[in-house]
Amino acid sequence: MSLNTFGHLFRFTTWGESHGPALGATVDGCPPGIKVDEAMLQHWLDKRRPGQNKNTTQRNEPDAVRILSGVFEGETTGTSIQLMIENTDQRSRDYGDIAETFRPGHADITYHQKYGLRDYRGGGRSSARETAARVAAGGIARAALDALVPGIEIKGYMTRMGEMTLDRTRFDWDAIDQNDFWLPDASAAPAWETYLQKIRKAQNSVGAVVEVVARGVPAGLGAPIYGKLDTDLAAAMMSINAVKGVEIGEGMAAAELMGTDNADEIFMGENGPEYSSNHAGGILGGISTGQDLVVRFAVKPTSSILTPRRSIRRDGTPIEVVTKGRHDPCVGIRAVPVGEAMMACVILDHLMLHRGQVGDGPRGKIG
Amino acid sequence: MSLNTFGHLFRFTTWGESHGPALGATVDGCPPGIKVDEAMLQHWLDKRRPGQNKNTTQRNEPDAVRILSGVFEGETTGTSIQLMIENTDQRSRDYGDIAETFRPGHADITYHQKYGLRDYRGGGRSSARETAARVAAGGIARAALDALVPGIEIKGYMTRMGEMTLDRTRFDWDAIDQNDFWLPDASAAPAWETYLQKIRKAQNSVGAVVEVVARGVPAGLGAPIYGKLDTDLAAAMMSINAVKGVEIGEGMAAAELMGTDNADEIFMGENGPEYSSNHAGGILGGISTGQDLVVRFAVKPTSSILTPRRSIRRDGTPIEVVTKGRHDPCVGIRAVPVGEAMMACVILDHLMLHRGQVGDGPRGKIG
Amino acid sequence: MSLNTFGHLFRFTTWGESHGPALGATVDGCPPGIKVDEAMLQHWLDKRRPGQNKNTTQRNEPDAVRILSGVFEGETTGTSIQLMIENTDQRSRDYGDIAETFRPGHADITYHQKYGLRDYRGGGRSSARETAARVAAGGIARAALDALVPGIEIKGYMTRMGEMTLDRTRFDWDAIDQNDFWLPDASAAPAWETYLQKIRKAQNSVGAVVEVVARGVPAGLGAPIYGKLDTDLAAAMMSINAVKGVEIGEGMAAAELMGTDNADEIFMGENGPEYSSNHAGGILGGISTGQDLVVRFAVKPTSSILTPRRSIRRDGTPIEVVTKGRHDPCVGIRAVPVGEAMMACVILDHLMLHRGQVGDGPRGKIG
Amino acid sequence: MSLNTFGHLFRFTTWGESHGPALGATVDGCPPGIKVDEAMLQHWLDKRRPGQNKNTTQRNEPDAVRILSGVFEGETTGTSIQLMIENTDQRSRDYGDIAETFRPGHADITYHQKYGLRDYRGGGRSSARETAARVAAGGIARAALDALVPGIEIKGYMTRMGEMTLDRTRFDWDAIDQNDFWLPDASAAPAWETYLQKIRKAQNSVGAVVEVVARGVPAGLGAPIYGKLDTDLAAAMMSINAVKGVEIGEGMAAAELMGTDNADEIFMGENGPEYSSNHAGGILGGISTGQDLVVRFAVKPTSSILTPRRSIRRDGTPIEVVTKGRHDPCVGIRAVPVGEAMMACVILDHLMLHRGQVGDGPRGKIG
Repeated sequence: MSLNTFGHLFRFTTWGESHGPALGATVDGCPPGIKVDEAMLQHWLDKRRPGQNKNTTQRNEPDAVRILSGVFEGETTGTSIQLMIENTDQRSRDYGDIAETFRPGHADITYHQKYGLRDYRGGGRSSARETAARVAAGGIARAALDALVPGIEIKGYMTRMGEMTLDRTRFDWDAIDQNDFWLPDASAAPAWETYLQKIRKAQNSVGAVVEVVARGVPAGLGAPIYGKLDTDLAAAMMSINAVKGVEIGEGMAAAELMGTDNADEIFMGENGPEYSSNHAGGILGGISTGQDLVVRFAVKPTSSILTPRRSIRRDGTPIEVVTKGRHDPCVGIRAVPVGEAMMACVILDHLMLHRGQVGDGPRGKIG
Repeated sequence: MSLNTFGHLFRFTTWGESHGPALGATVDGCPPGIKVDEAMLQHWLDKRRPGQNKNTTQRNEPDAVRILSGVFEGETTGTSIQLMIENTDQRSRDYGDIAETFRPGHADITYHQKYGLRDYRGGGRSSARETAARVAAGGIARAALDALVPGIEIKGYMTRMGEMTLDRTRFDWDAIDQNDFWLPDASAAPAWETYLQKIRKAQNSVGAVVEVVARGVPAGLGAPIYGKLDTDLAAAMMSINAVKGVEIGEGMAAAELMGTDNADEIFMGENGPEYSSNHAGGILGGISTGQDLVVRFAVKPTSSILTPRRSIRRDGTPIEVVTKGRHDPCVGIRAVPVGEAMMACVILDHLMLHRGQVGDGPRGKIG
Repeated sequence: MSLNTFGHLFRFTTWGESHGPALGATVDGCPPGIKVDEAMLQHWLDKRRPGQNKNTTQRNEPDAVRILSGVFEGETTGTSIQLMIENTDQRSRDYGDIAETFRPGHADITYHQKYGLRDYRGGGRSSARETAARVAAGGIARAALDALVPGIEIKGYMTRMGEMTLDRTRFDWDAIDQNDFWLPDASAAPAWETYLQKIRKAQNSVGAVVEVVARGVPAGLGAPIYGKLDTDLAAAMMSINAVKGVEIGEGMAAAELMGTDNADEIFMGENGPEYSSNHAGGILGGISTGQDLVVRFAVKPTSSILTPRRSIRRDGTPIEVVTKGRHDPCVGIRAVPVGEAMMACVILDHLMLHRGQVGDGPRGKIG
Repeated sequence: MSLNTFGHLFRFTTWGESHGPALGATVDGCPPGIKVDEAMLQHWLDKRRPGQNKNTTQRNEPDAVRILSGVFEGETTGTSIQLMIENTDQRSRDYGDIAETFRPGHADITYHQKYGLRDYRGGGRSSARETAARVAAGGIARAALDALVPGIEIKGYMTRMGEMTLDRTRFDWDAIDQNDFWLPDASAAPAWETYLQKIRKAQNSVGAVVEVVARGVPAGLGAPIYGKLDTDLAAAMMSINAVKGVEIGEGMAAAELMGTDNADEIFMGENGPEYSSNHAGGILGGISTGQDLVVRFAVKPTSSILTPRRSIRRDGTPIEVVTKGRHDPCVGIRAVPVGEAMMACVILDHLMLHRGQVGDGPRGKIG
C-alpha cells in the first residue's frame, strides 16, 4: 500500500516524480470562500525554490504552480483543489547511471525491495522535489488560517548546521526572512555561509536542525489520544525527506530535567491563562495551550555527495558510488519552508476538527 | 473531534478513564487464526503494571485483561477483538481537590479549554493508565507477528535518566529483562536506583530516554509518503503521555554529521544486502532496510510532584499545587513496555499493508 | 481486513459475537456536554429487543446496556464512549450442529472461505445481534442531535411485508409507535399479524420493506462527492444484515419517470425554499434540501427456516439443513429501530462535518 | 467537509469542474508492476464519451486522458498515479443565465446553501463530467485485476428505460458491446432508440435501470461489518450522479419472497461450492461467494429539460426555468461505463484488503 495523503479533514494527496512531466497536490476539505490565487502560493514556493543562491542546488526550476480546480472567481468553493507544478529542468542523463545502482543513504534500495521497480530518475517519487507540492498545499492552509483565525504567524529557521549553532541571545523574529539561512540572527549568516562553502568544496554535506514556531494559535486544538497536536506535528515533520528526529518544546533535553524545573507554572493574565515558561512547546495532553507552538526537527546531511562511497548494484556486485548531479550541501536550508507548510496544514486541520468545514448550519442565504 | 484510533489496517481504539469502571482497546483488522489467550496478554501488562517495586507508583492495580470478542477456541477470528481491563484500586478521594484546579504540566487546563468539562479523577482520559490498553493491543500484535514473521524480537530499554546514562560499551541484550530499569547493563541498575530514590525523597521527579529496537524486521515495510515507517513510529511514540521527542537512528545528532560520516555503506552479504553501520535506524525513504529498527523517545519528568508549584483555579484565582496521590518519580520506566507495544503494532500494521489481512485469495478449504 | 467502524467524525466500532460474553460499540467523536444516561439508550434497545411479542423470536435477552467510559456526571466528555451489552440467554446447544454445516442464505460458508475459521455459535459475528450495538450507538447520536438541532424527528416503519402493503392514504405518523409492526396505519396491524402467523406456522419466513424518514434536518448536510448524504445512507442501510436494496426518495421507480414528472419545483416559502414534491427524498447533489429525508430498504426473508433446504458440509458432502433455534419469521420488523439508529448516526456525522466536534474555538471558560 | 476520495486501500480522489481547465483522478494504492498506458484508459473513456450518437448529448469532448505520475516505463510503480483530462469544448455562455438561478432537480440550490458560493458553469463540481475521472480510475483497476486475478469480466447494461424493459429470455452477454444502449439483446435496440427519440422531441427525458455484473470474482472478498462488499458497492453506485436506488441480487423484490424461495441451495461442484440460484447476487454476509456479483441501480430522468419548470432565483423571486445547453435525454446510457468502473474499483480494493499492495514480504530481488 501507498499512503500519499496527509491530514484528517484538511487533507492533501501529493503525486509526481522528480523527473516526470509534473507533480502536485490534490487538496481536499478546504473551507469555502477563502481568497486564493496562484501568486499567493508562488510566494511560498519561491522560498523553497532551488537555484536562488550558491548555498542550494543549481538545478533551476521555476516551480510555477497552477490551480486547476476548486477555486472559482478567486475563492475556494469547498471542493477538491488541484495544484500542479510542471517539471521543466530535467537532466535525466545525470541520473541514468543509477538505474542499476543503489546510492547509500537513499531510498533506491528500499523502493526496489518493496515495489520491485522504481522510477530511478533523480530519485523518482522519493526525491525531495515532492516537498514542493507540500509547500503549495501549505499556501492554501495559510490563506485559510488567515481568514479563519487572523493573527497566526508561522516561521521556520535554522538553529544548527554541523558545528554552527544559533545564539538565542540574539534572537530576532524579523531577521528570519532576511538571510539565506532563515536565521533569526542576520549577523551570523556570513559565518554560516563560509562554513557551508568549505563543506561544499570538500565535496561533502552537513546536517541541520530546523525550528518552526507558530504564534497566535488558539488554545484547545488537538484530538487526543491518537490525533494529538504533537502527534500529528511529529508525523508531519518526520515525513519530510531526510528528517531523523522531531522535538516538541524541551524535546529530548526533557530527559535531563527535574520535575521542579520542567513545570510551566500558570498565572492569570489579562486575556486568560499565561505561563512562566514554555517547556511544553505550547501543548499539554496533546492540546494547544495558546502559547507558541515550538517544533524542531533534525535533517541528516545530504546523501548525494561527490566523495565516493561503497555500495552494490542490483545484481549484488560491489561499486563505488559518486553522486553527480546538482545537490544541496545542506538540505536543511530548503527544509525550512517545508516545515512551515506542514505546520500550517496541521494547525488548519485541527482547527477544522473543531469547527468543521463550513461552521454551524447552512452557509448560503436565499431571499 | 476525538481520535482514539491508531493504525491503518491493524487498528486499535482505546477507551476508558483512570477512575472509571474499566478501560480497554477495541482491536480491529487482526489476521485470523492467530493463537491468543489472556495469559499471553497479561505477560506484557505485568511488565507495565504499577506497584511492583519501589521505583514505581504504589498504586496497585492487577490490570487483569479479559478478551470479550474476536477470539474463538483460542484463535483470532479476523473480527474485532475487545480487550477490557477493570479498574479496581481507585482512590478518587486523592483527586477530588483538583476538580477546580489545573495542575501545571498536566492536561487539566487544555481538556477544560477544549471540551468545557472533564473527568478530573486521576486525570481521567488523559491519565497514563490509557497506556495499559495499548500494551494489551500490543500483545495481540506480538502474537500475530510471531505467527506471520517468526524471529522478530522487540525490546525497549532506558538509555538516560536525568544524569544517568547508559554505557553502550557494556550493552547486553539479554540483561534487559533482568532489572527494574530495563537496562541492557544489569550492573548499572543499583546506581540508577540510588539516584532515583534520592530524587523521590527530594519530592521531585526526573525525565528519561527510552530506546526501542526491533530485530528481524523484513526489508520493504513502510508506505511512503505519509505512511512512512518512521512517520508512523514517530506518531506512535509521540502519542505516549509525557513524550517530548522522537528519534530514528542517529536522531537529532544527525545535524552534527557530515555526509561522509552519515552514509551507511552497502555490502552484499550471504542473505542479501548488509550495511557498514546503521545511522539510518533501519529505515531509508520511509521503508525498512532489514537492519535493526531503532527508535528513541524522551519522557519528561512526572508533572505530579510533592513540591509546590504555582497555578490557577478554574475561576482564575491563584493557588499553590502540591500533587498528592501515588506517582512514579520517573514515568520513563513504565513507558518502556508501552514503547515496545507501539513498535509491535506499527510493524504488524505495515506488514498487513503488504500482505493484507488474509493473504492471497480465499483461506478456508471446502471438500 | 476487517472494517468494523462506521462514520467519518462521529464514528462507532462494533464488537462481539452472538454467543460470546458480551457485545458493544466503541463510540468516538461525540460532541462534549451532551446529556446521556443508560436509560435513554435502553429505551431504543427495548424497541429492538427480541421476545416481546409473538411476531419476533422468543430468544429473550434483556439487552441491558452499560456505559463504561466517555460520560462523566451525566454528560459526554468528548472522548471515546464504550457501550457494553452482556449476552445472557445463550442456548449454544441449538447451534452446535452447524459447526460443520453451511446454512443456505447465511454467512457460514463465506466466513469460512474468507477467514478459515468462524465462531459458528448463532452465526457468531455475522449474527443480527450485532445490530443491538448499532441501536445503542444510535441512542448517543439521537441525544446529540436533540441537543444540537432541536426538532429533528426520526421514525422508521414497514411499507411492505410479502403480500401486505401499506395504504399511504391512511398514513399516520403518530400511529407508528403504537403497533407491533411499526405501521403508520394502526388499523392494518391485525391483518399483517394474521398473515405473518400463517407464514410462521408454514415453517416459512417473509421479506419486508422498511422506510425511515427524518424530519427537520437542516439544508446543507452532505459531503460530495464520495461522502454524499445519500451515499452514506445507502452504505448505512446496506450494511444491516439481510438488506438487499436501498432507495432514496423515488428510488428504483425513478427509472419509469419522465423528467417533467420527476422535477421537484421550487417555491419561496416563509422560512426559505419549499418544494412542490419530494421525488428527491430530501437530497440534491448529495446534500440535504431541508425536506424530509426518505430512505427505504428491503430485507430478505429470514434464511433460518424449519423447512429443509439442501446444502453441504465443510467436507463437501451433501446435507439437508433445517435451522432450529428461535428465529424471527420476518426480520424486517426488528430492522426498523436499526434503520432509525443508522439514520441518526449518519445525520449527526454530517452535522459534525459541518460544525466539527466542539464548534468554533475553545469551549471552556477560565476566570 | 468535502470527501472526494473513494476506497480503502485502492483509493482515488477526483477533482475538477465541468468548465474548469481540467479534471482528473489521483489514484493511490495501486499495486506495482501493473502494465498501464493511456490507450488502455482511453478505451474505457471512449465508452462514456458524449457526442458519439444521437442518443447522447452533442457536447463533443475528446476526453483524452494523460498519465502524469506513478507509471514508469509502462508499469505502475506503486506510488500515486495522476490522471488528467483537459476540458476543451466549454460553451460557458450556455450556462451564464443560471448563475443566479436554481435549476429544479439539480445541486445548484444545495451547493449554494452548503458552501455559500458555487462554480455554476455547467454544474461545476456537481456535473456528471466528474464521472469521466472515475472511468479513468476504473481503467487502472481493470488493468490491476487482469494482472492479479485473470478471468474477471465486468459488464454493465440497461434493463429498463421508462416503459422499455429488457427481455431476459433473450439475454446475450456478447451483444452488450454491440449497440448504443449496452443492451444484452441487440434486437431490442431499435425500439429503445425510437422510444428515446420520441421523448427527446417532446423536450423531455426519462429514467433508467442499469445492471452491472462481475464474473469470475473469487470467494472471500468483503470486509464485514461496515466494509461489506455489498455496502461498498451500494455506496459506489449511489455516489454516481442521479442515482436514486441500488439493489444487490434480488434487490427490493426480496421483500415479496418467502424464505423457501429465496434460499440459494448449495451443492458441491467440481471446483468447489455451487449454488442452485443467485438471489443473493453473489454476496453472503457481505463476502463474495464466487457467484456472479449482480448490482443494479436506478438513474433518475435528466433534470435538464427544455420544458419549463418553476423555481426561484437566489434572491427568492420566482422564475420559470428552461435548461438549454446540450443534454442527454437519458443519462442512464452513459452511466453504464461509470457503473462498470466503480465495480472494478470496489473489487480491486477488496482484493487488496486481502493481499495488501505487494503481497507477502519484499518484492524486489537483489543479487
